Amino acid sequence: MAPQDLQITLERFSSGDRRVLARVITLVENRSRDVPRIMRALYPKCGRARVLGITGPPGAGKSTLTDKLIARLRARGRRVGVVAVDPSSPFSGGAILGDRVRMQEHFLDDGVFIRSLSTRGRHGGLARATREVVHLLDAFGFDDVLVETVGVGQTELDIMRVAQTTMVVLVPEAGDTIQVMKAGLLEIGDVFLVNKADREGARRLKNELEAMVQLRPDARWQAPVLLTQATDGTGVDDLLAAIDAHQAARTRRAAHEDEEARLQEWYEILRDELSLRLERAVAGEALRPMAERLRRGDIDPYSAALDTLADPAALERLLGERRDGGEE
Amino acid sequence: MAPQDLQITLERFSSGDRRVLARVITLVENRSRDVPRIMRALYPKCGRARVLGITGPPGAGKSTLTDKLIARLRARGRRVGVVAVDPSSPFSGGAILGDRVRMQEHFLDDGVFIRSLSTRGRHGGLARATREVVHLLDAFGFDDVLVETVGVGQTELDIMRVAQTTMVVLVPEAGDTIQVMKAGLLEIGDVFLVNKADREGARRLKNELEAMVQLRPDARWQAPVLLTQATDGTGVDDLLAAIDAHQAARTRRAAHEDEEARLQEWYEILRDELSLRLERAVAGEALRPMAERLRRGDIDPYSAALDTLADPAALERLLGERRDGGEE
Repeated sequence: MAPQDLQITLERFSSGDRRVLARVITLVENRSRDVPRIMRALYPKCGRARVLGITGPPGAGKSTLTDKLIARLRARGRRVGVVAVDPSSPFSGGAILGDRVRMQEHFLDDGVFIRSLSTRGRHGGLARATREVVHLLDAFGFDDVLVETVGVGQTELDIMRVAQTTMVVLVPEAGDTIQVMKAGLLEIGDVFLVNKADREGARRLKNELEAMVQLRPDARWQAPVLLTQATDGTGVDDLLAAIDAHQAARTRRAAHEDEEARLQEWYEILRDELSLRLERAVAGEALRPMAERLRRGDIDPYSAALDTLADPAALERLLGERRDGGEE
Repeated sequence: MAPQDLQITLERFSSGDRRVLARVITLVENRSRDVPRIMRALYPKCGRARVLGITGPPGAGKSTLTDKLIARLRARGRRVGVVAVDPSSPFSGGAILGDRVRMQEHFLDDGVFIRSLSTRGRHGGLARATREVVHLLDAFGFDDVLVETVGVGQTELDIMRVAQTTMVVLVPEAGDTIQVMKAGLLEIGDVFLVNKADREGARRLKNELEAMVQLRPDARWQAPVLLTQATDGTGVDDLLAAIDAHQAARTRRAAHEDEEARLQEWYEILRDELSLRLERAVAGEALRPMAERLRRGDIDPYSAALDTLADPAALERLLGERRDGGEE
């Protein structure tokens, strides 16, 4: 993107053009070269939104709960952006379908923006893309940004680190508690929800979770365990109150956390940007002679990598970004 | 590790010292600086073992099946190495417990070596660590290397790429087929197993899988769908025959695949090595002034990253490896 196009994009973004917001999110998804410069320009506008995460195993009712949350937050007059991330379905494109279905409901409401992200960028790329979309929604002016993930793997845990307040949604089923512990959800939850609370075992699960929460080392925030029924909205007011309480508690100790978050973000941008440049170099001309030697079996992959890394000029050829702009 | 220590390690490894094998695997787990040099030295010994992957949702009976496979392969006189990878449990350390329990059975059998890997290296690090452990077991002289993963996420798919023959284990349960498709397991399976075949729905799942397999574009190998019962060993002989058949079919087209695998491996080593050097740089002195500016809020993370990446000298400070040895 040429500097003047970048300028126009940023101006339209700042004037509240939703199509430009959508287009910039697509640039993030496609890992465009323009993203770091866009993010740098918008960064001063970030930091106002509350970032709320919703996670838990598939089928726990997260989407329904998110929809109920959106409605209540809208009733308070708050503008709500949603990022739904599905790292578990690299082939199905299911996230995009879900996106469209859900968009229908809020189609006419300018105060709501919903976007799905699917598994395009591997190796931590999805977590970074999520954070960038959160920044964009924040800079665009949404008061609350909801991040919803499906599944319970390492990728989801990485993604949830962007949230200030993380809700973990569970349903009363055998073995659930152990799954929570195994998947690391116990550590990341700021609010626990036992959804489908009319089912047998809901009260027992709540008790088990409360016992586990009390064993956590963090004495500054005692994570509440709420009974909810997303389908009819039971417990959603309690949830909103719990979010407000956690946000208030968080504000009192936010400065240090923000410092750490900035450092972590810087490191992750560097890491992903290096990885991206390497990808382009491997696909391009700079590394072709070595690739040919590897194809012929004249050198093994470890020797090839060590040789490249030992040579400063090769490193610079590999990672220096000479072209700027032109490509989307 | 000093050059002479490296030499001694390599000699003991080559003489078949299992404690040295275990120690080198620990170096891989800890992402030691010595790993690329060790791998380079051992690479010429690799490429003899069959690499067999076993994956599928939790509770499908993968571990029991692996144990039965080990027994049959041992009965054929083959030496068997096993890597069990559990990317889903970053906190529990469950993999290591499973390791110990299973090691007991084969404790006195020198022809079997079982090792678990847990989620230490994030961001693709686990897939690379798995491949390195596979190389080590291969170079050590195991005839078959089994790679077992738990779960169905993107990390597991990445890990399974190391396998030459991938077994996907399923159980007859409602919705299973859709899960398979969603999780990308359909694409990676070379042999499908419907385990717990005495359960209702086993035959139907087999039929559904066979129909789906026929829709796959690869005409060179028609993945069989086998009914097994891991607990009593039913179907394990058929499984061995299917593995042999797939390996034979694979050999006929292996040269090109090996080329691609070498290129991919080279790229991944470069990527992970850069990421590792960056991690060390961030933790060390080279980037401290920038880190201080970030802490104070004098610069935002994107500007900090772009400034660092735009400066060749900074890149070299960041990624050049000056020290060699000393640290484990």
